[in-house]
Amino acid sequence: MPFKKSIVGGTFDNFHKGHQDLIKTAIDLSTSVVIGMTSDQFAQKFRTGDVDSFKKRSDVISHFCKTLGKDFKIIEINDFYGPSTTDPSIEAIIVSEETALRAKEINAIRVKKGLNKLVIVEVPFTLAEDGKPISSERIREGEIDGDGNLA
Amino acid sequence: MPFKKSIVGGTFDNFHKGHQDLIKTAIDLSTSVVIGMTSDQFAQKFRTGDVDSFKKRSDVISHFCKTLGKDFKIIEINDFYGPSTTDPSIEAIIVSEETALRAKEINAIRVKKGLNKLVIVEVPFTLAEDGKPISSERIREGEIDGDGNLA
Repeated sequence: MPFKKSIVGGTFDNFHKGHQDLIKTAIDLSTSVVIGMTSDQFAQKFRTGDVDSFKKRSDVISHFCKTLGKDFKIIEINDFYGPSTTDPSIEAIIVSEETALRAKEINAIRVKKGLNKLVIVEVPFTLAEDGKPISSERIREGEIDGDGNLA
Repeated sequence: MPFKKSIVGGTFDNFHKGHQDLIKTAIDLSTSVVIGMTSDQFAQKFRTGDVDSFKKRSDVISHFCKTLGKDFKIIEINDFYGPSTTDPSIEAIIVSEETALRAKEINAIRVKKGLNKLVIVEVPFTLAEDGKPISSERIREGEIDGDGNLA
């Protein structure tokens, strides 16, 4: 397995095909995966619209990861970084196009702390039927379903 | 294996630990790897200083890849992209921090052509003994050896 431990983060509201592709890539690349999921309080700070509870969001991801049969751990995060800037054993970070810049910030912080930089794996957006990215917002607004089919 | 086919590119002059880490990551992630290596003519257009011949550079990489026992193919490229912008079967591109922007260009070109975007895997620079990146230039100037030891 290329990476012993990798990290992936997000809010993972309205768990959809894009989230699945991101997490599946992390799991395919790694012996163990840390999934940093935003707390309810933190998610409310920057998300517009209602977000499902941490409990509900983590139950959905747990179920998905269990079907892939790999070692994973969901942890609650209260900032954009979680353990990605502090854990020396993490080797890679898996990000979407949307959060790729965050990975650069994380590496800059790691260098300041004397930690190794992470390999950054940037996964393209998963596209809906109309060729635009699948997003939680589009699902919430009823434009598409979680697989990207137009409503 | 996460990716069926991935691509990595470069001039790979003074083959060093940084090149090895890049190619090893590509090989670890993929069933087969295309290594795009700049032609002598193309390398001379943008490199300062002497560059070893294509033959010599590819022999060194072949030897290294064979020790890793994976399917790989070295192809001569005469621009910065090679087959990365034309081959629909490529799934990922492995780049160093130095060439990460090139991968973004490649994805933009692929989208224009109606091809899938590649997963971009950005591998951090491998550092020399002094904490600065290992580079062909530093080796050529006699500052460090290929493993990053100070001369």
